[in-house]
Amino acid sequence: MSSKGARTRVTDLHLLSAAEAARWIESGRISSEQLVSACLAQIRAREDQVRAWTFLDPEHALGAARAADARRGLGAPTGPLHGVPVGLKDIIDTRGMPTEHGSVLHAGRVPLADASVVTRLVAAGAIPLGKTVTTEFAVFGPGRTTNPHDGARTPGGSSSGSAAAVAADMVPIALGSQTNGSTIRPAAFCGVLGLKPTRGLISRHGLLTLSPTLDHVGLFARSIEDLALLLQVLSGPDAADPATLPVAQLPFQSVAASEPPVPPRFAFIKTPHFERAEPETHAAFAELCQRLGEQVEEIELLPFAESAWHWHQTIMEAEMALQLEPEWRSGSAQLSATLRQQLERGRQITALDYQRALSSIEPLYAGLAELFEQRYDAILTPAAPGAAPLGLHSTGDPVFCTPWTLCGMPAISLPLLETPAGLPLGVQLVGPRSGDARLLRTARWLCARFAEA
Amino acid sequence: MSSKGARTRVTDLHLLSAAEAARWIESGRISSEQLVSACLAQIRAREDQVRAWTFLDPEHALGAARAADARRGLGAPTGPLHGVPVGLKDIIDTRGMPTEHGSVLHAGRVPLADASVVTRLVAAGAIPLGKTVTTEFAVFGPGRTTNPHDGARTPGGSSSGSAAAVAADMVPIALGSQTNGSTIRPAAFCGVLGLKPTRGLISRHGLLTLSPTLDHVGLFARSIEDLALLLQVLSGPDAADPATLPVAQLPFQSVAASEPPVPPRFAFIKTPHFERAEPETHAAFAELCQRLGEQVEEIELLPFAESAWHWHQTIMEAEMALQLEPEWRSGSAQLSATLRQQLERGRQITALDYQRALSSIEPLYAGLAELFEQRYDAILTPAAPGAAPLGLHSTGDPVFCTPWTLCGMPAISLPLLETPAGLPLGVQLVGPRSGDARLLRTARWLCARFAEA
Repeated sequence: MSSKGARTRVTDLHLLSAAEAARWIESGRISSEQLVSACLAQIRAREDQVRAWTFLDPEHALGAARAADARRGLGAPTGPLHGVPVGLKDIIDTRGMPTEHGSVLHAGRVPLADASVVTRLVAAGAIPLGKTVTTEFAVFGPGRTTNPHDGARTPGGSSSGSAAAVAADMVPIALGSQTNGSTIRPAAFCGVLGLKPTRGLISRHGLLTLSPTLDHVGLFARSIEDLALLLQVLSGPDAADPATLPVAQLPFQSVAASEPPVPPRFAFIKTPHFERAEPETHAAFAELCQRLGEQVEEIELLPFAESAWHWHQTIMEAEMALQLEPEWRSGSAQLSATLRQQLERGRQITALDYQRALSSIEPLYAGLAELFEQRYDAILTPAAPGAAPLGLHSTGDPVFCTPWTLCGMPAISLPLLETPAGLPLGVQLVGPRSGDARLLRTARWLCARFAEA
Repeated sequence: MSSKGARTRVTDLHLLSAAEAARWIESGRISSEQLVSACLAQIRAREDQVRAWTFLDPEHALGAARAADARRGLGAPTGPLHGVPVGLKDIIDTRGMPTEHGSVLHAGRVPLADASVVTRLVAAGAIPLGKTVTTEFAVFGPGRTTNPHDGARTPGGSSSGSAAAVAADMVPIALGSQTNGSTIRPAAFCGVLGLKPTRGLISRHGLLTLSPTLDHVGLFARSIEDLALLLQVLSGPDAADPATLPVAQLPFQSVAASEPPVPPRFAFIKTPHFERAEPETHAAFAELCQRLGEQVEEIELLPFAESAWHWHQTIMEAEMALQLEPEWRSGSAQLSATLRQQLERGRQITALDYQRALSSIEPLYAGLAELFEQRYDAILTPAAPGAAPLGLHSTGDPVFCTPWTLCGMPAISLPLLETPAGLPLGVQLVGPRSGDARLLRTARWLCARFAEA
């Protein structure tokens, strides 16, 4: 979490945060080519075990880095990510680079246009380094990525490769997505920062659509400063995604970097599914709450909220059934059995149940929003039931992400805890809609508090 | 359509338009009490036959008129409808005045708060005169209103009473609603102006919700100036109706009153259902097109658009099934057989079909919008298959309203044609979304052109 810049040698450039790297490139201390070379060297060193990438063309990336260096050398204006490499989940369209959605049905697909987030990254000077492994259509069917902390364990999903690549120091920042727990869960399992911003803050145009209601872009980094920088670059309305909010650009970086005027207060919510959490999670959160003392209070969800998981499943499966209907119709045999079953369940859902689920979101959020109006800065809850499970046949359980994703609230996973065996355990903080900047500020405060100990 | 002000005697005040009446009250030429008295006298004269009102308290209305006169006498600021009576369809909530949705299930229901449109009318100085007859839940089951032109014929529906009251000179302006053809059709049958503005222009908060996707507020008047005045008073964002558009207030009145810079051009669209139109409609539109000469061209809908009627029905019935579920569950025996069948069909619709229908709206609109970008000012089409049918068992066929309602486009019915027997035949003009002001300008041009002849 802390700045590693002061003691970084040229061979360790892959350890720089994106913000640091951009500053060093801007000042001429290093070149983009040096940075990209260091990241590619780290990928060569670790990729055999981690398997985070589904497409990587080192020469193309180095060419882009050299072009960025040349533009800077000519005095052309540079953006806040000038020369910095970024990993992109393989459901994010990239012009001229394959985007295969984790399915043989889309093998070899090369989009004609960049997703809006890619356009924004490139405009900010970033170098799309390559495409990272996703589960099958960003749902449950695992990809081939392993957990950088233990190759026998899942990295989590569906943004498996993006989380693992950032955790393995292959790239400072990467993009993923979240429709249930696809950013928070792999961030927690891999021990990096994961942010699912407020619904509508970042355009999803050019991403695989699973659920127009629930899909979000997700961000991975190793520092809060980098998450704020990514929000600054990526957020804003986009006519191509009508769900983007028509709001003014917020000063994410300065708010995230500031001190809270008073120590933040946390509402610890176990959810009705806390019994599914591992004993290690129970113990770690008990200790965390003890350390936070009066700044944390345990809050129970209203009984009404206990249906949130059902509503989420109804919306996600009904919408997936429409969005993946072409694949279901023409390539059903190439889908995993789990996905086929989900699509078949989705096809049976009535418009009545679907509308009921949709119309439950606002009343549910109204109840949660009261927590923030009253006294709390953030909801505190596990990011996942425990550390990354053993085995690569599953990417783990998104149960602790569901209600916040359903409500479109910003959520962040912080790698603050670990199991006795040294595996990362994520702490999830959740804020009110559009409270992304303050959520980062609260997260930074909590990380600093832990660094002191 | 033309101003009757110059030759209006005090006993004829009920013939004034709302705009004229407001000017006369503002100038002190008449009082609100005189105007309301004249309207009440006209109601006494015609209500036995027309049966437009479901609630009317003459003393209360006169009291409100006297209070308006007193406020003006004290020099208090007055709004653009100061002292002018308005009729309100009985699905529009009025604080302290019954709102029964045309169903015995809501007999005696008195809302605690005004609908947003009522709040805006009252803030503009208008006097809510009373509540007008609606069909059962604003769907097909007829109320007891008759057509002012012929008591043996339907006034159309579902905004039956509002259309008939304005047509019978009982009130200069009235509000209704439209989910399919519930404003345009009764306006056409009763020979008055009816406007269904762009979706999102007027808040629906406090109206019975049948279909959040398709419901619109509808406006009735006897002059285009009054429709522009109503738009000015009623349009604008409302946090209580998230579908309202965050757009600046447009100068509806000045645009509607202006001359088109060049004579407008019309796209005559018969729709795939023109064979359902009466021979009289065929003849009248042939003559109309001949009179317009080069300013009109016949345009065929794309084959894709032929599903618009199916999509509309899917959305409306699926959404009604949710919105009227309480009534269906607890009062099914009190519903008409037609409505019960509709709700039962709605309960069977799958989320897949419902989403397909919803996601067809934008591609359908994109095709229609091209007409306006290319060369046409308005679509020209019948408002209904013919004049008001004989009998009160049905309110007629909304078939010529469906695609424009589905797309949320502004539509107006103009009483420009008539059958050989002298019954009104409506001409419907349809504009692009947010083109309401220019649609009124085009409509005024067409009315003036006819007045010349």
